[in-house]
Amino acid sequence: MNAPPKFLAEQAQVDEASVIPLPCSHKIHVTGSRPDLRVPMREIRQSDTPATFGAEPNPPLTVYDTSGPYSDPTVSIDIRAGLPSVRSCWIEERQDTEALNGPSSTYGQERLDNAALTEMRFKLQRTPRRALTGQNVSQMHYARRGIITPEMEYVAIRENCRREAQLDALKARGGNAERWLSAQHPGESLGASLPGQITPEFVRDEIARGRAILPANINHPEIEPMIIGRNFLVKINANIGNSALGSSIQEEVEKMTWAIRWGGDTVMDLSTGKNIHETREWIIRNSPVPIGTVPIYQALEKVDGKAEELTWEIYRDTLIEQAEQGVDYFTIHAGLRLAHIPLTAQRLTGIVSRGGSIMAKWCLSHHKENFLYTHFEDICAIMKAYDVSFSLGDGLRPGSIHDANDAAQFAELKTLGELTQIAWKHDVQTMIEGPGHVPMHRIRENMELQLSLCQEAPFYTLGPLTTDIAPGYDHITSAIGAAMIGWQGTAMLCYVTPKEHLGLPDKNDVKDGIMAYKIAAHAADLAKGHPGAQMRDNALSKARFEFRWDDQFNLGLDPDKAREFHDETLPQEGAKLAHFCSMCGPHFCAMKITQDVRDYASQIGVSSEQALDQGMAEKAQEFRAQGAELYRKV
Amino acid sequence: MNAPPKFLAEQAQVDEASVIPLPCSHKIHVTGSRPDLRVPMREIRQSDTPATFGAEPNPPLTVYDTSGPYSDPTVSIDIRAGLPSVRSCWIEERQDTEALNGPSSTYGQERLDNAALTEMRFKLQRTPRRALTGQNVSQMHYARRGIITPEMEYVAIRENCRREAQLDALKARGGNAERWLSAQHPGESLGASLPGQITPEFVRDEIARGRAILPANINHPEIEPMIIGRNFLVKINANIGNSALGSSIQEEVEKMTWAIRWGGDTVMDLSTGKNIHETREWIIRNSPVPIGTVPIYQALEKVDGKAEELTWEIYRDTLIEQAEQGVDYFTIHAGLRLAHIPLTAQRLTGIVSRGGSIMAKWCLSHHKENFLYTHFEDICAIMKAYDVSFSLGDGLRPGSIHDANDAAQFAELKTLGELTQIAWKHDVQTMIEGPGHVPMHRIRENMELQLSLCQEAPFYTLGPLTTDIAPGYDHITSAIGAAMIGWQGTAMLCYVTPKEHLGLPDKNDVKDGIMAYKIAAHAADLAKGHPGAQMRDNALSKARFEFRWDDQFNLGLDPDKAREFHDETLPQEGAKLAHFCSMCGPHFCAMKITQDVRDYASQIGVSSEQALDQGMAEKAQEFRAQGAELYRKV
Repeated sequence: MNAPPKFLAEQAQVDEASVIPLPCSHKIHVTGSRPDLRVPMREIRQSDTPATFGAEPNPPLTVYDTSGPYSDPTVSIDIRAGLPSVRSCWIEERQDTEALNGPSSTYGQERLDNAALTEMRFKLQRTPRRALTGQNVSQMHYARRGIITPEMEYVAIRENCRREAQLDALKARGGNAERWLSAQHPGESLGASLPGQITPEFVRDEIARGRAILPANINHPEIEPMIIGRNFLVKINANIGNSALGSSIQEEVEKMTWAIRWGGDTVMDLSTGKNIHETREWIIRNSPVPIGTVPIYQALEKVDGKAEELTWEIYRDTLIEQAEQGVDYFTIHAGLRLAHIPLTAQRLTGIVSRGGSIMAKWCLSHHKENFLYTHFEDICAIMKAYDVSFSLGDGLRPGSIHDANDAAQFAELKTLGELTQIAWKHDVQTMIEGPGHVPMHRIRENMELQLSLCQEAPFYTLGPLTTDIAPGYDHITSAIGAAMIGWQGTAMLCYVTPKEHLGLPDKNDVKDGIMAYKIAAHAADLAKGHPGAQMRDNALSKARFEFRWDDQFNLGLDPDKAREFHDETLPQEGAKLAHFCSMCGPHFCAMKITQDVRDYASQIGVSSEQALDQGMAEKAQEFRAQGAELYRKV
Repeated sequence: MNAPPKFLAEQAQVDEASVIPLPCSHKIHVTGSRPDLRVPMREIRQSDTPATFGAEPNPPLTVYDTSGPYSDPTVSIDIRAGLPSVRSCWIEERQDTEALNGPSSTYGQERLDNAALTEMRFKLQRTPRRALTGQNVSQMHYARRGIITPEMEYVAIRENCRREAQLDALKARGGNAERWLSAQHPGESLGASLPGQITPEFVRDEIARGRAILPANINHPEIEPMIIGRNFLVKINANIGNSALGSSIQEEVEKMTWAIRWGGDTVMDLSTGKNIHETREWIIRNSPVPIGTVPIYQALEKVDGKAEELTWEIYRDTLIEQAEQGVDYFTIHAGLRLAHIPLTAQRLTGIVSRGGSIMAKWCLSHHKENFLYTHFEDICAIMKAYDVSFSLGDGLRPGSIHDANDAAQFAELKTLGELTQIAWKHDVQTMIEGPGHVPMHRIRENMELQLSLCQEAPFYTLGPLTTDIAPGYDHITSAIGAAMIGWQGTAMLCYVTPKEHLGLPDKNDVKDGIMAYKIAAHAADLAKGHPGAQMRDNALSKARFEFRWDDQFNLGLDPDKAREFHDETLPQEGAKLAHFCSMCGPHFCAMKITQDVRDYASQIGVSSEQALDQGMAEKAQEFRAQGAELYRKV
């Protein structure tokens, strides 16, 4: 792999591909109870239904939007300056935090003092914040005190996605549009509670009881708040990050802006290579979505890769260093206990979690209990001072179908349940990581055990992959499992790219992973009966049926690809009005042939058998006279 | 789209890419009860487990193989001659058929007499066969008379895939290999019966009771017999075929050889463009897998695309024409009744089936009952004279999430159940086509209704797609539904390519569709607990854990892609021995770090808590002295 060019801060530029506006889309904002609370969404315009089908206008569709200011052509982006703050006022108003003089971690201060890093460092103009002594600044703490924060209100507006406003507009308009667009199969929520309208109070209650988390570090004021929980839209995470064998700061920021363009709800920076600290700063300052990390990676880098030399002190310093940069959630493998390790002896693929294997090695080297477990309450003290959420790591997740649902995996899950109770004692927001590789029929057991052992804390799974036999296609082997476990109640799905098991993902892989996981998450929302989820499917299918090709592309998850695939065989602009595509051609297009059945069938009425008896030849003549088209304008 | 070059029979060549042998693989044959009954399979060789992990040899893995003679370097291929016959002796021995003087269809004779077609025509050296008067030559007819045909024995051997021979070899060898490779999660078969060893008698019984079909037209002696049924391996179909807007005979034959290379169990030729008859001949003569068609397409071409001008006579002639070429199954939309059409009035996407829309238009033009329905027993008479199987078409399948599971769809399914009974009265093999677009929570209903209405006839679904919002990625939206409905009992899954809804698929799309559907089918086999299914997952995961990179690639569904993805970032040959890849690099590879836990943990024993009390420091010292590696050679 070629070494990337040297990264210089002053030359850093946003990825051009990430700032091209999405087609026929613009950013809208819904304002809440205060003028500085403006929730972004995306509105996709449609063309009118052609005369053949009834010549009606099609309302724009509002969809959830993770792309941040990047897709807004009215905003000028300079990644050297970072994104504007969304939340600083809200944080400061609470008057329970203070700005420090500088980083309070040893390592953070070392990096700042290192002149050699100046040319690549993000030029941050402020110092970190931290809770005032004795204060707890987590959203859960506020929620449990009955406080609805601006973040909670923001999230409620965001989750509703203007559903009621759109339905009201459709009703007012009359015609067919409301019927088609608002229709939805009742779901099978399997125990989830999905209210028609999300209120800020509902958000507060879900956070207070631990069933949802709102990851929002006080040092990441740039985020557009979002919520992770079973009773909200299923979310997805994209992993980025360099390794010793490749990638640069520029590429990593590009992966982030690319991931959120296509729908990543959070991004994890899993860097294990050079300049982890500086890379992360660039990412966080420019990310409108929550950022997660696995602090043990950087801790390991600090001891030159020798797991046995890790210490609690180094790790603690790393937590503070990262929390003060603004990391919103930490994956922490505190559930992997020394006693669990022998349970992996019969495994086919051992321990596949990087963090898990690092901690296992440390435990065996010292023959001591995992220090993340023994120091868990010390960790909680740090988390609550910045509002970092736990993502309790599944170090013993199965890395093969063979190892699925074994004793090691569930022993750790049980411990994660115990740790959840401790975290909640400190009002620290917590989600639970999950597998892995699991055949379809054993997925349900994972969901049910997690719900009961972890008292409904949000579940955050990696897939699961439903078979091992397709390296190169693991975004697909795992999208199957992810869709199923999302339906069953998993709150967030960590994506898998086609490069899984093979190498570091590039931008194309990031997009492929996102697409597979947006599909899985949305399929889950539909199955759960999430109110309003089916609106997008209805709008797209209506466009498809009416041969509004551009609308069909623009309403899809990937307008670029849909358009490209269509144009491979029918590139001429005229083809966008054609009532066929190259699949079947003009004579065989089922949708073309069926254009008139709706009208004719309703003339007949449902009792067409009676009509058959009465003047068949007459009816047939009439049909042919009208042009023998199956669906006609009413 | 550029017009393809003119096709000349004498210049026809096999696609080079399809005859490259798969890596480290060779074709093996298992001989049955007679020397001319030789069942092909593929054997994948593996390298030895390296010393670090115990230095043992890894047995070759036998896998099911659809690629025919193309992947066998000992066979020389000339597509102008077609494939050698597998079954001619077996057919002739039964002495219930005769060779005709020539095609008995009007159209077939016309094409043969047309001198302009000579230069493109496949040079067939024989005339069609047909049952002697009064004879029924379907596999179901033989099965019901208690006869086990060579085809049935062949299929039994094929389905077993040398499972017991492999297990015996592993037992004899001793060591770890048997434990790892033979392990399998007990499945949840949801009502399927999956015996450990498939016997020819079991095959006969399944066919006799209609729960499986063995599609094998007497005029397609080149096929390697296969079986479609709930109690056998889940199968997949690949669609190919030209359209008025593109593709040539050469390209279509290439799509077929490419589809079977990667795992297509059957192929449907859905051509709607030029020279449908001649294109099909080339495909069938060179196909080792059953070929399906939708005869109404060609019938429509014969009336210049005017559905209302179709007649039973034209259709009947088309059935005979195609049966005499050797088509193994016909999709026939006999269940779409006139009375059903008004039920589509409230649909969002009307009728999306080409064949369904054609028949609907005909019905409304004439205001008469569907002639495929009224002439159904006449069709049975033709089917049984050649052993063509029914694929009863779902002309009213839902083409959008909105339309899923509606009255139109299930009304047709009910009729298909009634028609199945009629077909079985004639001992005609029958499978039932299914949806479509169905959200996950409504898939089960489809399976259960079909099982009961159609008396367990095999179900053959198109996906289903679990959401509409991702044109460009419908191989993924549908792989999710296909995996689920395959688990629930669907016997064959019709693939969907990334080009679905957008254009005609090319070779790359064919492969992408095959991969997604091999994944879905195998995930379903695992969930059902199909005996031996997990062997391949185990072998691949073992290779992965032991850093046998080439073995990992070769054991996967797509060795080329896996290797290509790995080499993107680590191309050097030395990297194939590396105990890491570019995802994590040498210090962070979880599998590298965990190399010694197995040995150390078993030294501790499961009661590691006791070990903790007894000389912790001693144990720790010992671990570090041994090199601090988590998994070591026993």
